[in-house]
This record gives sequence, C-alpha cells and structure tokens, in this order.
Amino acid sequence: MRAAPTQEDIRRQNLGALLRRVHLLGPVSRAQLTAGMGLNRSTIGALTADLTEAGLVLEELPRDTAGRGRPSLVVRARSQSVYALAFAVGADRLVAARVGLGGVVLDRREVERPGGTFGLDEGVERLADFAAHLTASAEPQALCVGAAAAVPAAIARDDGPAHARSGTERYGALLADAAGRTVRVGTTGNLGALGEHTRGAAAGHDDAVYLHGDGGISGGIIARGRPLTGADGFAAELGHMVVNPHGRRCWCGSTGCWETEIGEPTLLTRAGHPGTRGRDAVHRAVDAAARGDKDAEEGLRSVGDWLGIGVANLVNILNPRIVVFGGTLRLVYPAAAAQVRSRINRTTLPTHREHLRLRTALLADDAPLHGAAELAFTELFENPLEFTSA
Amino acid sequence: MRAAPTQEDIRRQNLGALLRRVHLLGPVSRAQLTAGMGLNRSTIGALTADLTEAGLVLEELPRDTAGRGRPSLVVRARSQSVYALAFAVGADRLVAARVGLGGVVLDRREVERPGGTFGLDEGVERLADFAAHLTASAEPQALCVGAAAAVPAAIARDDGPAHARSGTERYGALLADAAGRTVRVGTTGNLGALGEHTRGAAAGHDDAVYLHGDGGISGGIIARGRPLTGADGFAAELGHMVVNPHGRRCWCGSTGCWETEIGEPTLLTRAGHPGTRGRDAVHRAVDAAARGDKDAEEGLRSVGDWLGIGVANLVNILNPRIVVFGGTLRLVYPAAAAQVRSRINRTTLPTHREHLRLRTALLADDAPLHGAAELAFTELFENPLEFTSA
Repeated sequence: MRAAPTQEDIRRQNLGALLRRVHLLGPVSRAQLTAGMGLNRSTIGALTADLTEAGLVLEELPRDTAGRGRPSLVVRARSQSVYALAFAVGADRLVAARVGLGGVVLDRREVERPGGTFGLDEGVERLADFAAHLTASAEPQALCVGAAAAVPAAIARDDGPAHARSGTERYGALLADAAGRTVRVGTTGNLGALGEHTRGAAAGHDDAVYLHGDGGISGGIIARGRPLTGADGFAAELGHMVVNPHGRRCWCGSTGCWETEIGEPTLLTRAGHPGTRGRDAVHRAVDAAARGDKDAEEGLRSVGDWLGIGVANLVNILNPRIVVFGGTLRLVYPAAAAQVRSRINRTTLPTHREHLRLRTALLADDAPLHGAAELAFTELFENPLEFTSA
Repeated sequence: MRAAPTQEDIRRQNLGALLRRVHLLGPVSRAQLTAGMGLNRSTIGALTADLTEAGLVLEELPRDTAGRGRPSLVVRARSQSVYALAFAVGADRLVAARVGLGGVVLDRREVERPGGTFGLDEGVERLADFAAHLTASAEPQALCVGAAAAVPAAIARDDGPAHARSGTERYGALLADAAGRTVRVGTTGNLGALGEHTRGAAAGHDDAVYLHGDGGISGGIIARGRPLTGADGFAAELGHMVVNPHGRRCWCGSTGCWETEIGEPTLLTRAGHPGTRGRDAVHRAVDAAARGDKDAEEGLRSVGDWLGIGVANLVNILNPRIVVFGGTLRLVYPAAAAQVRSRINRTTLPTHREHLRLRTALLADDAPLHGAAELAFTELFENPLEFTSA
C-alpha cells in the first residue's frame, strides 16, 4: 500500500540499481546493463553519464574488440577512489580494511588478540588507529562513503541482561567516537550472512542460512534475498536455540542451547583437548581426528550430530537453499559432514533437503568483514549522487 | 535490480493497491485514500472511477455529513457481487465459504468428520458439492475471482516420503477437478498465518508466527509483512522442529519433534484422557484442569513447558512481534500461559521478549479459511480490471 514513486524517485532508484550492479558483477557493458535492467539504451547512457561525472564509475572500451563491430562501452567501478571502511571484531583478532567499490580489499590491518574475552572498550582504540592509517593510505581525492563493523552479539551481555544486544550498538558508538565518523554495526553472524550472500557461497540464493563459529555460535538468515531482521533487528540468535533441554547450562542463563553442544569449549573438551581455545586449537583437534585420534574422532562425531540437529531444525523452519558454515565451523563441518547429513536425512522431509546445499564460506574468515563493507556501502546505493555533491 | 515500471505497470499497481486497501480497511473516503496512498486527488478519482465502472467498488455519500462542508465520497467494496471461494480441510471438519471482497463471509457450509485420518480423495466431493451450492446462492451477476483451500501438510505423506508435501498440491488438483475451477492451495499453518495477519490478531505486525493445533502442529511465519516461503515454498514446518532429541519417535520418522511433545495425543494422554481425540476432547481436558483435576493440570503444565521451549526457539530465530495460537492451541495456550511465559523468560534475551505479544487467534477456528480467501483474492489485486473484461 505504498505510494507510487515519482520520476525523481525512479531515477534515483535506477542510479542506485545500476551502481550496485556494477559493484556486484564487476565491469559490465552498457549492452549488458540495458538487457539486465530492462531499460532502454538512452536511459542507461544517461545514468552512466551521471555516475561517471560523479566520479563513481568510469567507462572504457572493452579490451578485446576484435571482429565485433562497434563495441559497447564497459562500465567499471572506480574501486581505488570510492571506498568503505570495514571492521570485524573476532574472538581472537581484530581486522580493519579499506574496501573499494566493487568489493575489492584495497588495504587491510589485523591484530591477534588470543584468549581475550570482550570488554566494550577493548580494541576500539586499535581499530580507530587502523582506520586512520587506512584512510591516510588512500588516494588523495578518494571518497569514503561509509563505515561499518561486524561485532559479536555476545558483547551485548557486558552491561547486563536488561540491555542485551544493545552492547553491539554501544560498541559501534564507541568506535564512531574513536574514529571520528559514523560506524554502522551488525552482528558477526548477520554480516557474515550478508557477505556470503553478496559475493560468497550463498550468492544467487534468495534463501540462505549462515552459521559462524568463533568461541560461541552466531548466525544470519537471508530470506527472499534480504537479511531477515525480525521485529527489532534481533533475528537469527541461532546459538541460543534450545536443542537439548536436558543438557548443560548455558552462560546465557538457559539450558541446552545449541552453542553448549557445538561451541568451541565443548568440541575441544570432547575431542580430548580440554582447556585449550581458539581457532588454532580447533585446527589441531580436526587434524588429530584426520590422523585417526580416537578421542578427536569421537568428539567431532558428537559435535557433528548436534550440529546436524540444529541445522535440520533451521531447514524445517526456514527451507533455505543453502547453509554456509563460517568461522571455526569452516573447519568443523567438513570433518563432521557425515553426521550432519545423517541427522538432516532423519529429521527433515525430502522436499526440504532435495535441493539443499551445505557449503563452507567462500570468503573464508572474512565473510563478516565483507558483510560490514556491504553495510557501509548501503547509503551510497540509496542515493549515489548525494555523496559526491557533499 | 529490477527493471523500472512502465506507466501502465504503475496504473495497474495503483488500482490493485487501492482495491486492496478498500478490501482490508473497509469503506474509506477518497480523502483518506489520497492521504494514505500519497497520490493526488485527481489520480484517486480516476482510479476509483475505473474500479467503479468495473463493478468492483461503489462510491456513495457518507452517512453522517452534518456540518462538514462538501463531503468526500466513500469507496466501498461490492462484497455481495465480487467474491472468492475458500475451503478449509481440518482433522475433524470440512468447511467451504463464499467470502465477499472486503473479507465478509457471505455463506458457509460445514460438515463434521470426527476421528478420520486423511486420504487424498476424502472430502473432495463434499467440498465440490458445497462449492456448487455456494456459487448457486450468489447474486446472478456476481463475479467469482478465485478459489483456494487450506490443507494439512500431513496429507502430503499419503503418497510416500519421496513426494512429501506434494500431496497438498494433489489435493488442490483433485478439488479443482471436482469443482471445475482452479483451486490454489496452502497449508493450514501458512494460510492461518495469512488470515491472522490480514484481519486477525497479527494485523499491523510485520513479523509474526502463527501456530495451529489440529491433531498435530502446523505453523506459518510472516516476515517483513509477507509470508515466509523459503526456497521451495516449504518453510514453517514447525511441528517437526526437534526439541527433545531423547524423546519419543515421531510418525515422520524423526525423534523428539515438537509435535510429539505438544500434539493432541500427548496432551490428552498426559492429561488423563488417553484414547480420546479431537477438539472436544481437548476442550474437556482444559475444562478438567480448570476445575482442579490434578492429572489434567499436570498434563497442561507439561505441554505448556514444551510449548514454551518451541516458542522460545522461534523467538530467538525469528524475533517476531507476535505469536498467535490457533486451532486447539487456542484452548491450550490460555491454560498453560504461565509455563509458556516462564520458558520464554528463561530461554530468550530480554531484547527479544520485551515487545513480544502472545495472543490467541482473533478469527478463532477460521483463520485458515480467511487465509484461503486472501490467497484466492491475490490475482484480483494483481490486475483488477483483467477480471471484469473476462
């Protein structure tokens, strides 16, 4: 029941859609844009002229023009001069990157922080420092169109249950203060989903689930091509789905959360490496299982079984086309795929699993970082010419 | 990245949007339409003129015009002469109705079928017979714009696991053959969600979950104002979410499905009424608990606890604004609300439950029937003038 768009709305939408298309697909000819967007040639020409004048794209002759008659100009994102700042706060490392329009990582800074738990202030100064260096290393006339950070939802609980998840926003506010610019925030799971959906394993799939292991478990859901936010923006709290009501107590106060059965501490304990932590420890446990270590094999089988139970529930509830495993689950899933598949086969209907794909994250550990970059680019696509007149 | 709409697309969209607005909100003045749709007065005038000429709406002076200067014409749906056929197949009854534009039930036929299990053919002839009578009782010039049926997903399994859920479509095909017209189908849960979202307890809420008890448990999800379908249209298979992996075997082949803990047989057994079935039996169990019967109280407490575990999972995953209990859960939820709330409080974060509402279905047992009517009206709103030229 929305009002009809004005001509100016339509032009702005078309500019954003064209720019986003170039951002997602890479260099693309005017002819391809004309066909793909269902607009006529002169409209495409006018739109690309506006975006070129604004310094957001450039047009050039295709490299290979042999024997094809008059070639269609190719539109390319000006990646070096139009960029976003992306941050990813992980359990054992902090990352900041300058990501050019088109999704290319132009510069990247990273610091390990093994074994830490999160405090709100922790890492903020370091990330702000990274941001300053990243900005300074850009071309002199380069335009920063936004900044965003992927932050664990678990930070939320620092300030107590009354404001759970608000910690994510507070982290963003602190980072914004330190960096001297607006910083949007999303959870690691939600932005990991956005990253993999934009240019990873879930690209082209309108219905997807992303699961991220990093100490605990976070997740993100793509439904009908867009992130599922829920009523308050808190959807996809997947680690706290109860799968074992008779199981162990979770730090969140509940009992039998998925995270208590498949999270890092449980995996490492069951695999015979109690007291260790972090990605390297998970790597060692998976390696041990691959070498035939019985404890490690048994631990991975058990975790795989619980991983399968939860994935099967999500398949029954959401009917996704693809489930993507990121973070430490990128190591765990391949080692436990048989258990996961077996549980899915027992617990879902054939209709739900017939076309289901299970994949590891294509963007590897950087799915949340790329998702943060996409979030930072959002405003540019809403109104591309707004940015350049500023 | 969709193509820009043409002027003709926009006009068709505006006609559909205006008609749908009148359908949902009831009689509405041209002035309200102008304000609500963000279009100017002359456009609204032209659109209502088209719809009036097509026989879909009529315009009249408001009843109370005292002291308000020149009154704005009121646009009203022609409910008696524009209608849809809606069917609902339940565990213990079959319903067919003629539903007028605007959502009013004009005529309705119902037959009890206590204690039956479903076969594909069962009830089809009876519903087709109802449809013939409903059509014959309409005004001579009345226009039927579509037909749809709410069908249990469980019918699906009649023809074996390889085609689970396809049974829903097959039921629709058989009904279409018998009734001599196209019949769209949806599951009881999905269409119950659509009904409650359109004109029930979930109206105005963009993120909602509907749960329907009728022997087993089915459900529907509304996300961002629209039904969540998933990749293949099979989302919201909520009854088969595993909540108790160490629990009992489900008829679906899995173990510990939500349905095994909160479905009718479990409730009635735990409440001290083993061997009974149907809505009346659930009613008796709930009444017994209200009168202080210890077995019944204990049974409802236990089912309430498991109901709460599953609802809490859905709250964590989907962050809905409202959860609506329909079918027999309309009786069970109020009797077990304390257990449900307690589980939600233990298992979800405050952010997720702060604004959460738990409600029984406003459309009572007819939520799926109203949802079927909405589904049947869909095509009309996509292109209102198409129908009248036929």
